[in-house]
Amino acid sequence: MLLDFYGELLTDKQRECCDLHYNEDLSLSEIAEQLGISRQGVWDNIRRGESAMQEIEEKTGLIRRFERTRRALGLIAERAREIAAQTEGRPQEIARQIMSEVERIEEWDLNDGV
Amino acid sequence: MLLDFYGELLTDKQRECCDLHYNEDLSLSEIAEQLGISRQGVWDNIRRGESAMQEIEEKTGLIRRFERTRRALGLIAERAREIAAQTEGRPQEIARQIMSEVERIEEWDLNDGV
Repeated sequence: MLLDFYGELLTDKQRECCDLHYNEDLSLSEIAEQLGISRQGVWDNIRRGESAMQEIEEKTGLIRRFERTRRALGLIAERAREIAAQTEGRPQEIARQIMSEVERIEEWDLNDGV
Repeated sequence: MLLDFYGELLTDKQRECCDLHYNEDLSLSEIAEQLGISRQGVWDNIRRGESAMQEIEEKTGLIRRFERTRRALGLIAERAREIAAQTEGRPQEIARQIMSEVERIEEWDLNDGV
């Protein structure tokens, strides 16, 4: 999540090391080999990248805000499902539109990552 | 909006100058007097602060993503209003809950600023 939000604000090397470690699940040695740098270098890049991103999140709270909105959207989708189950015709149709709208928002978020 | 999202990532001086200029609508001379720095200094802080925030937005696109979600939420609220107008009893009540939920999300965003 940190990488998705703030990855682009890191140095290329920090982002690359964090991405290979957290998203691709490679070991420090594997990353070192792949990038042609020392294992210690990989570790430093991950540690610095991570703490830079954590500092940005502490200052801006954007991920916290994003997750709160996300939870609220889940609640909205649930309520739309309830309406759809209890109605028919036009109201049911609109309730289903709300459900797809929430899904669409959730998909944007997933596909917008680094 | 830039200040709301990224203001905390600026230096104190940059944030202060940008805030007084854009949010408090003070002139460069007024800010210079208030902070005890030169008019040119105020201008440099605003220019650098602004371009730093624009660069962060270009890299992360977080405001762009936020505004898209915001538009989608407006659409959801509109649909919930439609349902509330066309139903009664429990479905209408749930539709109204969706409307307040959207309002609640919109208020968070407004109150979460710097």
